[in-house]
Amino acid sequence: MSFKLLSKSPRKGILTVRGRSVETPFFMPVATKATGKSITSDDYERIGIRAIISNSLHLELMPGSSVIKNNGGLHKFMNYKGIIFTDSGGFQASSKFFKEKVKKGLIFNNPHTTGTIKLTPEKAMQIQYDIGSDVAIVLDDMAPYGASYEEAKKAMLKTHEWALESLEAHKKLEEENPTGQLLFGIIQGNFYEDLRRESAKFITSLPFDGFAIGGLAIGETQEEMLKAIEWVKEYLPEDKPRYVMGVGKPEDMRILIENGIDCFDSIYPTKNARHGTLLSEEGRMSITKGRYKYDGKPVSSTCECHTCKNYSRAYLNHLTKVKDPSGHRLKSIHNLYYLNSKIKKL
Amino acid sequence: MSFKLLSKSPRKGILTVRGRSVETPFFMPVATKATGKSITSDDYERIGIRAIISNSLHLELMPGSSVIKNNGGLHKFMNYKGIIFTDSGGFQASSKFFKEKVKKGLIFNNPHTTGTIKLTPEKAMQIQYDIGSDVAIVLDDMAPYGASYEEAKKAMLKTHEWALESLEAHKKLEEENPTGQLLFGIIQGNFYEDLRRESAKFITSLPFDGFAIGGLAIGETQEEMLKAIEWVKEYLPEDKPRYVMGVGKPEDMRILIENGIDCFDSIYPTKNARHGTLLSEEGRMSITKGRYKYDGKPVSSTCECHTCKNYSRAYLNHLTKVKDPSGHRLKSIHNLYYLNSKIKKL
Repeated sequence: MSFKLLSKSPRKGILTVRGRSVETPFFMPVATKATGKSITSDDYERIGIRAIISNSLHLELMPGSSVIKNNGGLHKFMNYKGIIFTDSGGFQASSKFFKEKVKKGLIFNNPHTTGTIKLTPEKAMQIQYDIGSDVAIVLDDMAPYGASYEEAKKAMLKTHEWALESLEAHKKLEEENPTGQLLFGIIQGNFYEDLRRESAKFITSLPFDGFAIGGLAIGETQEEMLKAIEWVKEYLPEDKPRYVMGVGKPEDMRILIENGIDCFDSIYPTKNARHGTLLSEEGRMSITKGRYKYDGKPVSSTCECHTCKNYSRAYLNHLTKVKDPSGHRLKSIHNLYYLNSKIKKL
Repeated sequence: MSFKLLSKSPRKGILTVRGRSVETPFFMPVATKATGKSITSDDYERIGIRAIISNSLHLELMPGSSVIKNNGGLHKFMNYKGIIFTDSGGFQASSKFFKEKVKKGLIFNNPHTTGTIKLTPEKAMQIQYDIGSDVAIVLDDMAPYGASYEEAKKAMLKTHEWALESLEAHKKLEEENPTGQLLFGIIQGNFYEDLRRESAKFITSLPFDGFAIGGLAIGETQEEMLKAIEWVKEYLPEDKPRYVMGVGKPEDMRILIENGIDCFDSIYPTKNARHGTLLSEEGRMSITKGRYKYDGKPVSSTCECHTCKNYSRAYLNHLTKVKDPSGHRLKSIHNLYYLNSKIKKL
């Protein structure tokens, strides 16, 4: 990999992995199950999306990493030419199919069968390696918003233990058969200053290719989020990419970019799109409102996206009301295009 | 309009309405609610679809013909440049929101409100005129498969009465403000020879721009369907388009084309696609079968559609299993492309 810093203030660079490049800062749409919920790789490419994030736990459950491996890896499987990050599944400990935490990992109910799956650091590395993503992410243990100091500390220490195990497992896989896959570490510590500092210090002392700051955008205020970044930023090496997981609101990304963050992901644009909330320079638009029934204008007259160039507010209002999936696609294309353009101007 | 017969055997021609053209024979995808259920006008155009059919009753219920009229008509509303047919709503007398038949028309419950809507021939013409479709279709009264002779005759006579009223209402609208919209009549008569002949004789004596043969593909065998066509075909004028409603299976279309039919519509390709059944020269493929999980080939190696050029059977298997709407879109694109190409070779 190469991460080339082009400018320190504002911080701008180019991340290149396996011949695929993206300018930083960048925003990644979430393609949890190797699809963007109604949108596909051709849509990403038309929008100009150069990196996405998928979820290796979800992919292990369906269709299985062996299926993706045997189909030539995730890029080929979903026919996407940009950079693919994969999350480990640590965040899914807050999902409804999570069963329990054990000493060595996390256990999930398989929602497709009656069985369970145990995710250890080794297993999380193996899955992501088999899937063939460009950037793998360690298994971590995230304390929820409002966690006590003890709970947060325990989760942080477990995250550190699993970081070491993830690194070792990943190193072994890459030594046996090098693919150039990167591995990012995750800093935890909840909203406690000493824990965040301790975690940043420890994680950045390890030979990861980039650093994610986890446990944010989980219910805290923007002020609390910013504090967590301020506590850790002095530990982050300048020459490695910095990733805040789960953040996609323009107002949050702006302040984080000012604080040196390079990379984001969030379901914010697509989830909002499916619920009929469209983003634009003129503000948020709730497209199901009665006033848009007769509105022949595009969502935004200055937007160059496929949706705005071809379809009106009135048509999107109609598609949303009749619950046609084509509406979800057109609205998602607009919101992703907006955010992908917006981040270049933040 | 012009309908130019280029060849009598096999019967081939070009239908031109308001500057829009389509070669006959042709198949129309069903865009009931001004959308193809997960696919949009840009998909139709990429596939090469030159004509579609929408449903004026459904559009009157949502978003309302006034909305479409005020948005510049259906072509502009859904941004489709091909020919648009609209059905009247007569066929919806077999749907679950149908309430009752009255002397002057059909009454439907509005599934979006607590109210009802009364569809008379005049109303059906007004809606289709306001929507601005290229080809309007009369309101008819269709007897179900297995109807008694009495029932079938009663429905046929009502169809004739409404045909006259539809013609008159349409003539009045076009005289007041000419738009060049065509009007097709519908022949009924169920599966009784004398009724089919009587209906064909009567309907083709009226100055319609084309003739639909209704009440087919409602549960009968192919043999019964063919008989109904054979009974009526001597009455159909050579110089006007002939449309069999509701037929989309290649084997049915082939035999009907041999019998001089120019035009078809059916939910067959898109409904099958959504249920995971894909059409190809090699036969029907049930994409959810386990054997496709590891199959990196396209649905059909000879197909030039967007889906086959970009995505594998394995990926479509996965999208179907995780129930992502993007799968419905990709599979619908393939089936429509297949049928649209197939009809040129039948």
